[in-house]
Amino acid sequence: MQRLRRLWGRRSARVDERCFVVEGAKVLGEALDAGVAVESVYLAPGAGAPELAVAARAADRGSRVFELAPQALERAIGTVTPQPVVAVVPFVDRALAAIGRPQLVVVCVDVRDPGNAGTVLRSAAAAGADAVVVCDGAVDPYNPKAVRASAGALFHVPVVVAGPPAAALAELGALGLARLGTVARGGADYTTVDLAAPTALVLGNEAQGLPGGLDDHLDGTVTIPMPGRAESLNVGMTAAVLCFEAARQRRVAAGVGSG
Amino acid sequence: MQRLRRLWGRRSARVDERCFVVEGAKVLGEALDAGVAVESVYLAPGAGAPELAVAARAADRGSRVFELAPQALERAIGTVTPQPVVAVVPFVDRALAAIGRPQLVVVCVDVRDPGNAGTVLRSAAAAGADAVVVCDGAVDPYNPKAVRASAGALFHVPVVVAGPPAAALAELGALGLARLGTVARGGADYTTVDLAAPTALVLGNEAQGLPGGLDDHLDGTVTIPMPGRAESLNVGMTAAVLCFEAARQRRVAAGVGSG
Repeated sequence: MQRLRRLWGRRSARVDERCFVVEGAKVLGEALDAGVAVESVYLAPGAGAPELAVAARAADRGSRVFELAPQALERAIGTVTPQPVVAVVPFVDRALAAIGRPQLVVVCVDVRDPGNAGTVLRSAAAAGADAVVVCDGAVDPYNPKAVRASAGALFHVPVVVAGPPAAALAELGALGLARLGTVARGGADYTTVDLAAPTALVLGNEAQGLPGGLDDHLDGTVTIPMPGRAESLNVGMTAAVLCFEAARQRRVAAGVGSG
Repeated sequence: MQRLRRLWGRRSARVDERCFVVEGAKVLGEALDAGVAVESVYLAPGAGAPELAVAARAADRGSRVFELAPQALERAIGTVTPQPVVAVVPFVDRALAAIGRPQLVVVCVDVRDPGNAGTVLRSAAAAGADAVVVCDGAVDPYNPKAVRASAGALFHVPVVVAGPPAAALAELGALGLARLGTVARGGADYTTVDLAAPTALVLGNEAQGLPGGLDDHLDGTVTIPMPGRAESLNVGMTAAVLCFEAARQRRVAAGVGSG
């Protein structure tokens, strides 16, 4: 349980062991579906049929399964009513070079809120993006709150943990992607930009937007026009709107859907 | 403080007094900007310049201002680190008949999660919708978590608290809006439907979708195609994607933006 607490609470512990914690039978099942080699499963006393079934699946695949004493899980992860199963699973990120020829990538330069980061992952996965690149300075995608907000999306879209934003953007440019910074105002209307071409959507900080010094590594900027009040979308919602506009344009380009 | 606790914690108390609680200098300032007659302002000991300035604005407009003892606010609203200013403000909802001739309306038939409800309000406000209609069975839009997630959007888009969904949809139909139910699968691709025409986007329950028995009150159904995994968008993200597609189509219809 010391280890569970450490992996839950400390990024450095996660990085050292290259493992993180997922909660709940549904997400654990999705990890197994995705072929992840689940290391350990922890069942709390409240575990019911769904939790026992997924633990059995994991055990069949070689996971260790532990049954916990009452309140042990609450103490380890500091959540009042945790899901009755959690598991330790290995990191799923990969190198950008391993993605192949990506057509749609979302880049988190400086997304700080774990909930927003999770929503970005979820949007990217739903819209069929080829990767989410998380740069230095952005929140750890394996942070428990980000994992929870991503609702399993970590297992459905390739994640790349990159270094400094400039280097990551240079690498994406070399792959032939148009790198478009998202800005609250002053960018091109995102619906008038060709998002059917290979594109990297670059998301900045919730409050400050994109940091300075990246201009050499961007091919343009886009803005979501707000008929209502500006600054009303958070970065997760922004990602959803942009990713699904890219998906729409790709259907149009493929001759499916409307113009 | 008893009253603040009651209004914070109990829907029945809010409905009886037709008042709710907002948190933070930013949202309170937006309420004042919107012309809301703020009733009472409560300053906690941690209040700084932004809180004092907005309290002064409210006092100038006739609000009562109370300075709270240490920990009083924490005890009243049960939040560990509350914003150092909260206020009691009157309900802002209005009758559908008071909206005029709405062109874009979002209808929450059965949205249960306060965070999702807040995100729906935020998306609708940002995209310039004319109203959000909240039916019986959906979460109270004045629930503190919904208010927090809406980030002030309650003051930027008209809210209608309606009765049973069937009656609300009948009324919207009579106003000439095409009532489109959002469904996880089997509906028309939302990008191929004319959302530039007067439209009511009808959102169901997070898990179960739209309840049965509404078919007579819907003019069609729409689905967001998911190139990635289905069921990956929550209802707040769904609202953002649909509202901004409506905004896009309206710009195209007005001759602004691309097709």
